[in-house]
Amino acid sequence: MTTSATRRRPRTGGPASPAGASGGAASPHVTSIFNSAVASWAVAAAWEIGLLDELMETGEVDAVVYAAAHGLDATSTVGLCRALASVDLVRRTGTVITLSDHSAEAYRMKSFFHWLSRGSAELFQAMPNALVKANRTGSYYRRDAAAIAYACREINELCYESTFRAALDRIDGDIGVVADLGCGSGGRVLDLLRRFPGARGIGVDIARPALVDARSDAEAAGLAQRATFLEGDVLQLRRRPEFDEVELLTCFMMGHDFWPKDRCVATLRRLRECFPAARRLLLGDATRTEGVADADLPIFVVGFELGHDLMGISLPTVAEWESVFDEGGWQLLRTNRIDMTVGEVIFELA
Amino acid sequence: MTTSATRRRPRTGGPASPAGASGGAASPHVTSIFNSAVASWAVAAAWEIGLLDELMETGEVDAVVYAAAHGLDATSTVGLCRALASVDLVRRTGTVITLSDHSAEAYRMKSFFHWLSRGSAELFQAMPNALVKANRTGSYYRRDAAAIAYACREINELCYESTFRAALDRIDGDIGVVADLGCGSGGRVLDLLRRFPGARGIGVDIARPALVDARSDAEAAGLAQRATFLEGDVLQLRRRPEFDEVELLTCFMMGHDFWPKDRCVATLRRLRECFPAARRLLLGDATRTEGVADADLPIFVVGFELGHDLMGISLPTVAEWESVFDEGGWQLLRTNRIDMTVGEVIFELA
Ligand SMILES: C[S@@+](CC[C@H](N)C(=O)[O-])C[C@H]1O[C@@H](n2cnc3c(N)ncnc32)[C@H](O)[C@@H]1O
Ligand SMILES: C[S@@+](CC[C@H](N)C(=O)[O-])C[C@H]1O[C@@H](n2cnc3c(N)ncnc32)[C@H](O)[C@@H]1O
Repeated sequence: MTTSATRRRPRTGGPASPAGASGGAASPHVTSIFNSAVASWAVAAAWEIGLLDELMETGEVDAVVYAAAHGLDATSTVGLCRALASVDLVRRTGTVITLSDHSAEAYRMKSFFHWLSRGSAELFQAMPNALVKANRTGSYYRRDAAAIAYACREINELCYESTFRAALDRIDGDIGVVADLGCGSGGRVLDLLRRFPGARGIGVDIARPALVDARSDAEAAGLAQRATFLEGDVLQLRRRPEFDEVELLTCFMMGHDFWPKDRCVATLRRLRECFPAARRLLLGDATRTEGVADADLPIFVVGFELGHDLMGISLPTVAEWESVFDEGGWQLLRTNRIDMTVGEVIFELA
Repeated sequence: MTTSATRRRPRTGGPASPAGASGGAASPHVTSIFNSAVASWAVAAAWEIGLLDELMETGEVDAVVYAAAHGLDATSTVGLCRALASVDLVRRTGTVITLSDHSAEAYRMKSFFHWLSRGSAELFQAMPNALVKANRTGSYYRRDAAAIAYACREINELCYESTFRAALDRIDGDIGVVADLGCGSGGRVLDLLRRFPGARGIGVDIARPALVDARSDAEAAGLAQRATFLEGDVLQLRRRPEFDEVELLTCFMMGHDFWPKDRCVATLRRLRECFPAARRLLLGDATRTEGVADADLPIFVVGFELGHDLMGISLPTVAEWESVFDEGGWQLLRTNRIDMTVGEVIFELA
């Protein structure tokens, strides 16, 4: 139960358009906005239950058959398909869905829908609370950490992965120990272990559910012996023996949490202290973009930036980042601008 | 924290469109679906904090000024306006928003967005859980009862109110006591008390937060002396002295909870027993519609029906309703089909 500190008694009707007066259902534009909102949840769910993958692989899914095979409620599964079809993300004939012109694109972008509708729904649902200044202290919002980790794994693949690999290629010599900060469900640690077969890996995250996933994935991948996942706050890290030999530090999609500036500088310095042997820090994150008209914003930006506004997290610009590295004790080797949607960038630091 | 019983390890990429391969941000269609999802939350929030009313009244709002006047975070308030502007529900220049061609229509339909994004977000967020048959027992989903009551008050105004008034006009003589079943935040009880100045009113609802709102509204309206709000399950009502003199029964937007058929007949009969003096039952609700193509569905249907599918609540058709009244001990005087969006209907029963 959330109730809003500012909830006003509804004023039904209103000057411009008295409710019930200009009868009939909504215009197509407003209807499609409503249907899109439902479809956004449906994309996230359809991905998670495997239905989207099945559709992309086979080109056709019978929702009732799929439901039976996966222990799902048939009526709801058809309803989910109808929500997708209402905005042409799939075509539907009875219980059978097939590809529309937009299916492949929705599939490619599924992680953004998941981030929004699965990972961040509680934050957006509680927007009337989170807007109120007086409420904005303590843990005034909730999100689903495991769902966010799930989405971020693919957002990473989509946005950062190829640039990240190129940055790894520029590191000389072999790596003995790697540490990933804000490791989420641990995908990057496991990837690094595969890439550096002699290395050990450490993942640090503050979210226990993500770490549970990480450990079980490491187990499943046969990499549990070489991977350690630690619960910890990257902004308040202390030196630990495990950290002493770390040569490569990575930190993706959480660097904005370092900010504001003073805390960012302090955190960068502390990383130097906690990881005395670190030769390289690869820092990949979204940055605030400016000067794009509202109607031209690429996917993800509106949700990502409003979400961070609501959480009170200011996203730095690339210029702001570049202004802190020296003071933080790191030398900037190279800035890789990706700019897929939310100003993605990877800094290579030594 | 919700985690899904069926959550699959993400398979990044996929056959039809490997993630990261066909680079660049999403197509305009898929982008607008994402932005619409954010905007849906923004409409609900903007209504609740009063910003939408202000915009419709004055035609222009400076988000920063509005935020300052209402104790809101300025950055987030501008972000909210940007979300609305991203799908042309308002126009934005810097911090100032003005009306777009779609503002009035979004305003008229705001209660549906609120129902979806404020009232039912938790249900849709947890869709991957609620789809799984094995999970569908007990209280396997959550919604925000107070938010739903808030939205339903206006949905009622928009969809049912004029037809409801006409049905009241067809009742002979005066009414001494009215009872509203599933009264939510009590708006209908208060309206009936205004319409029948000599009457007393009873509201019954299962949701305590809605009753709290109802009592405080009755107080504010100076009607607390004549109104009683009782916590109770309409499906398991017992006779009470307060019910003995009730002459008019109303029940809006919860009749589908009576179903399936056996329970519906039993509930209708029990209403006869619990309210022996009832002369009229006005039953208004949505019904399941059929035969509309997915792309032509009016606003609300996709969300309303999928939501009920997920909750395991089957929406009866008008014909199904008409088949139970006799057996339930009520005579159908008249069926008023409204069909605004979700097959709204008001049955007049004696
Ligand atoms: C957006 S996810 C990114 C996960 C992963 N780095 C990746 O590239 O997919 C951000 C992660 O940072 C973690 N995180 C946020 N603030 C943190 C902090 N102060 N200390 C440790 N982890 C943090 C979150 O729990 C979450 O798992
Ligand atoms: C959609 S709202 C409609 C509220 C109000 N009747 C109106 O017209 O605006 C449905 C209401 O029915 C209530 N309700 C649902 N099932 C109920 C039950 N078994 N017993 C009592 N109230 C119930 C809910 O708590 C909610 O307030």
